[in-house]
Amino acid sequence: MDSIKNRRTIRKYKSQDIPEDLLNGLLEDSFRASTMGNMQLYSVVVTRSNEMKSKLAPMHFNQPMVMGAPVVLTFCADFNRFSLWCKQRKAEPGYDNFLSFINALSDALLVTQNFCTLAEEAGLGICYLGTTIYNPEPIIDLLKLPKLVVPVATITVGYPDECPSQPDRLPLSGIIHNEVYSQYTPEDIDEIYAYKESLPENKHFIEVNKKETLAQIFTDIRYRKADNETMSSGLINVLKRQGFFE
Amino acid sequence: MDSIKNRRTIRKYKSQDIPEDLLNGLLEDSFRASTMGNMQLYSVVVTRSNEMKSKLAPMHFNQPMVMGAPVVLTFCADFNRFSLWCKQRKAEPGYDNFLSFINALSDALLVTQNFCTLAEEAGLGICYLGTTIYNPEPIIDLLKLPKLVVPVATITVGYPDECPSQPDRLPLSGIIHNEVYSQYTPEDIDEIYAYKESLPENKHFIEVNKKETLAQIFTDIRYRKADNETMSSGLINVLKRQGFFE
Repeated sequence: MDSIKNRRTIRKYKSQDIPEDLLNGLLEDSFRASTMGNMQLYSVVVTRSNEMKSKLAPMHFNQPMVMGAPVVLTFCADFNRFSLWCKQRKAEPGYDNFLSFINALSDALLVTQNFCTLAEEAGLGICYLGTTIYNPEPIIDLLKLPKLVVPVATITVGYPDECPSQPDRLPLSGIIHNEVYSQYTPEDIDEIYAYKESLPENKHFIEVNKKETLAQIFTDIRYRKADNETMSSGLINVLKRQGFFE
Repeated sequence: MDSIKNRRTIRKYKSQDIPEDLLNGLLEDSFRASTMGNMQLYSVVVTRSNEMKSKLAPMHFNQPMVMGAPVVLTFCADFNRFSLWCKQRKAEPGYDNFLSFINALSDALLVTQNFCTLAEEAGLGICYLGTTIYNPEPIIDLLKLPKLVVPVATITVGYPDECPSQPDRLPLSGIIHNEVYSQYTPEDIDEIYAYKESLPENKHFIEVNKKETLAQIFTDIRYRKADNETMSSGLINVLKRQGFFE
């Protein structure tokens, strides 16, 4: 599994298309992921047309990967299909609630990660767009997602046209806990983040943004409280609109 | 990637232990998954002691895999570590909100699936316990999870002592949509669920439970509306308690 160990996000793709058979095979295999009660609570919308990509792009803050990739996949939490089946079989579905959304979200993300691994094994490169849940409403409208369907992850995929270096990761000891969670001491925190803080590119970020610490880059620029709160309200409204808070 | 294609859930394990180096290596590689802004918003609690397993087991409805597996892993959405770092670096974290929970949940689930793939490639077998989010509160107490940490997935792992058949999956055409979501017609639903409904074990379930349809097994017995609603309230309360709804 060197492809997992060596993975890096690919943001530049060759113009080469991905054959439909290859893409479908990767998706089919990805659906082998664990799923709640074997309900398979997900759908995938495949975007290949330039017209649709150009409409999707602003919903992902015009990140160039959307237009640059031959294929854009929107993975959705989906309780619509299962509920339709129930209704058609004299059964009353009870999945218009928050737990069911989280179940479907979980199913969808396991499949998303499986797809990424399989795509990379097949020589493709992927970029995970976290922007999907920032602003799901226009994506829902564009992709015509019905009630009980919510987009949760977007993957751009294509043949790599770059080989960036791997990003840093925190030391293992900062992430795993034995038997119980041991709360971090100030010394632990210093140690866990020391390497990240030592990287020249991160020092450069601090300088050009005229900040004191790397953490301030996150809290004041990249992931701000006010934005998170606005998007939290938006996301809850979308879950209501899509029928997961009845 | 035959291990993804051929995967099956393993519920019976040999008594053989998993060496710590092997487990740590798999976890470390799994942390290569895509992560929001490279924040790595997850922690993993490793349970090996019988005492802890026997306390965890009832929180997972006494499924025998918890006691039977040499290792139980609880994957947690974690904004605690990152927020501590911010506070220690003159930065005001703004991650006590719903969006931040979903971001951390997503990070944690991508890592969970990566771990499962890597474990299977290494000859181990896994079972994904969806029960984690049904009843997170006692798990939080037992594992001493602080604010901004929520358990989202539990994996039992060990050397397989069974080789069950693979479960059925819906046809690919029932899950992927080209360019836009095409709402399912009644005929589509019949076709998508036909194979599942034809399986002798599913017909047997209907008979022994004295139901009319397979869908009723789900709605009336396995995943009932009333239970889902109770657990939805519980989950929202847990998110409040853990500080994700400030």
